[in-house]
Amino acid sequence: MEVELKEMLSDLQSLKQSLPDPSLHDSLDKIQSRVEHLADLAKAAPVRRSKVKDMSAEVVDSNPYSRLMALQRMGIVENYERIREFSVAIVGIGGVGSVAAEMLTRCGIGRLLLYDYDKVELANMNRLFFRPDQASMTKTDAAVQTLSDINPDVVLESYTLNITTVEGFDTFMSSLKDKSFCPVKQGSGVDLVLSCVDNYEARMAVNQACNELSQTWLESGVSEDAVSGHIQLLIPGETACFACAPPLVVASGVDERTLKREGVCAASLPTTMGVVAGLLVQNTLKFLLGFGQVSPYLGYNSLKDFFPTMQMKPNPQCSNGACLKRQEEYMLAKPARDAAAKAKMEAEAPSEEGPLHDDNEWNISVVDDCELGGPETKSSDALPEGLTRELPSADEFNNLSAPGAPVTDIDDLEDLRRQLEAINSA
Amino acid sequence: MEVELKEMLSDLQSLKQSLPDPSLHDSLDKIQSRVEHLADLAKAAPVRRSKVKDMSAEVVDSNPYSRLMALQRMGIVENYERIREFSVAIVGIGGVGSVAAEMLTRCGIGRLLLYDYDKVELANMNRLFFRPDQASMTKTDAAVQTLSDINPDVVLESYTLNITTVEGFDTFMSSLKDKSFCPVKQGSGVDLVLSCVDNYEARMAVNQACNELSQTWLESGVSEDAVSGHIQLLIPGETACFACAPPLVVASGVDERTLKREGVCAASLPTTMGVVAGLLVQNTLKFLLGFGQVSPYLGYNSLKDFFPTMQMKPNPQCSNGACLKRQEEYMLAKPARDAAAKAKMEAEAPSEEGPLHDDNEWNISVVDDCELGGPETKSSDALPEGLTRELPSADEFNNLSAPGAPVTDIDDLEDLRRQLEAINSA
Repeated sequence: MEVELKEMLSDLQSLKQSLPDPSLHDSLDKIQSRVEHLADLAKAAPVRRSKVKDMSAEVVDSNPYSRLMALQRMGIVENYERIREFSVAIVGIGGVGSVAAEMLTRCGIGRLLLYDYDKVELANMNRLFFRPDQASMTKTDAAVQTLSDINPDVVLESYTLNITTVEGFDTFMSSLKDKSFCPVKQGSGVDLVLSCVDNYEARMAVNQACNELSQTWLESGVSEDAVSGHIQLLIPGETACFACAPPLVVASGVDERTLKREGVCAASLPTTMGVVAGLLVQNTLKFLLGFGQVSPYLGYNSLKDFFPTMQMKPNPQCSNGACLKRQEEYMLAKPARDAAAKAKMEAEAPSEEGPLHDDNEWNISVVDDCELGGPETKSSDALPEGLTRELPSADEFNNLSAPGAPVTDIDDLEDLRRQLEAINSA
Repeated sequence: MEVELKEMLSDLQSLKQSLPDPSLHDSLDKIQSRVEHLADLAKAAPVRRSKVKDMSAEVVDSNPYSRLMALQRMGIVENYERIREFSVAIVGIGGVGSVAAEMLTRCGIGRLLLYDYDKVELANMNRLFFRPDQASMTKTDAAVQTLSDINPDVVLESYTLNITTVEGFDTFMSSLKDKSFCPVKQGSGVDLVLSCVDNYEARMAVNQACNELSQTWLESGVSEDAVSGHIQLLIPGETACFACAPPLVVASGVDERTLKREGVCAASLPTTMGVVAGLLVQNTLKFLLGFGQVSPYLGYNSLKDFFPTMQMKPNPQCSNGACLKRQEEYMLAKPARDAAAKAKMEAEAPSEEGPLHDDNEWNISVVDDCELGGPETKSSDALPEGLTRELPSADEFNNLSAPGAPVTDIDDLEDLRRQLEAINSA
């Protein structure tokens, strides 16, 4: 707009010079002063920040990355700038996905792939991110508008499509496979897929794609009554896939059917969705940048501020063929993993006994390999306090297998013991 | 801008009519088409949504409150629309306070009072809420700009001041006392104060004001290494105040001095701050609307996804005079509380034994009154796993009293026992 106003001023100037009658100059002056006023107004309008070539740790007010690069100085992250190499796909740009996208954008992620087919509505304004003036835009367009203003350094790719349709699924698959952003990367073209959808079918589509591509993903969900949610890490072949067992959700004590069904006007809160998005992206950062422990499953019961954890091994009778292939590959790679772990252990601490699973670069504690595929002696109903199984109706989703046996995380058990002891000794 | 462009078009029209030479019409036509183009651009600019008189539960895309009113239909909240009567003060509009303000605004809170003296900088862009184009605006002005666009129904009051100065503290106090928004309200003019500041002095100022006004408040904090945080409920006389004991923070295992000190370039993450803001506002909603259980203290250790809880009773030797007055009042009101509890119990369940503390309208589980002021037999070092004391240097803050004894929440203990049992039986 500023350019156009400047051109208009020069047009007015030349018109004034060619005017024979000076009495008409007054009218032109009036128009000229209006244009000048508009130019002032336009100058006050938002200016986008320019791109930054390298992430600097310099402590100045104008550096958008100073507080992130400080994570290195504080000893939390070894190399923060690596974040610019990573690609994250976010499926579903709603109450959780949009906030997750904003968090990753502000963290300076390399590339974001955004998938949604829905439009912004005023009824979405009770959640963070979208603005009333974006109503009727597609969620992908509105997200790209907001995110590119926040951080022009992030490469944004948006896909306005439904991944549960044949065509949508094909485009989804090929976008995940595209390695042009980082050709040297192993595996698919993305480092992590975040599922932020609100229905079972879309989760199954993400599950199918990730099983086929051997792609690690994080699933998230918020209950229909708005007061609980969860995140779950899924590594094809290594952990249970979404089809291995009926999905676990946090028991709110209010309604058992807590995974959102399409068409139902569910309740939602910006708080629950903000917390779930925060936990999701925090675990994304831990996974990508290699710090802390990535949670295999983390629930959030907001009524009691209770956060159940657990993990599940793959189901050897899983109905998903791609999952079974990944399980087989994972088993076959066991000798190589063990050898690598042993070599690493000996190189790092030749005289001491190291941890059993030192090949675990993301610090995820998982089930012992040798347990994989063993007989299911544990009752499938023995879930940790606060978790319940989501059982879709059999006629709708009759390809579900028997539930896999949940396996308790040893770290959590020890945490609980220590907490109990501290409480008892107080 | 639209009005000005319209006027300019009519100016051009009259100029054209008074022009003797038709050869000059071309230049004018050119200018006219430019103005028309600008008018089109201006029309495409953001339009704010209009105010809503009553909160409707109608399930239509254009209703910004449908998903919140659904909380009633789902049985979570008895009367959601009550939220329009409440006033919440947010001190500190940074990484936690700004997100808390946005969440409450989107929830349709009646009135928000915002306090900050700082300006928006590009270095803040690694946290949610502020936009790069708001750099150099005061945080209060920028927040009012964004929040009023999101929800024009919320009454916003902003105070660009430092509450740790004498003048700032006086204005802070009188703004909290002002009851013009809801004259029938008991106590102060606000229902809850949220402390979202990043330094000890400001927290002590909030503590002083709330102790003097008998004002319940929620404190929040994020560690300097960005990977942990906490929220804490403070009810003057009933729970420990901020001066009763050195503040508790979540141990991250990285740095002991985890409460932010001014002037230090701390690390920060949008994830940790988003989670803390979400937990803070979720507990605010539970407190205001009377559902679920308000947490007395909730920590967040993001490296392990561990959430320690605990609670503290007031310190009878607290150095804060106003705290001691509130403790005395709370003791004196015990017979009245007991009588009210008994009456309520008999009215609700005449033939059965009810809970001991049925006078507790916010469902907060607190220490038994008779324990208040009793001998401190418990070791002050016996803290639940994952919590540590923040000890400011003695010369800076030498008015700190001896630590109060932490008291374990019975509900949490039982939760832990149940969780352990479920794990062991699995």
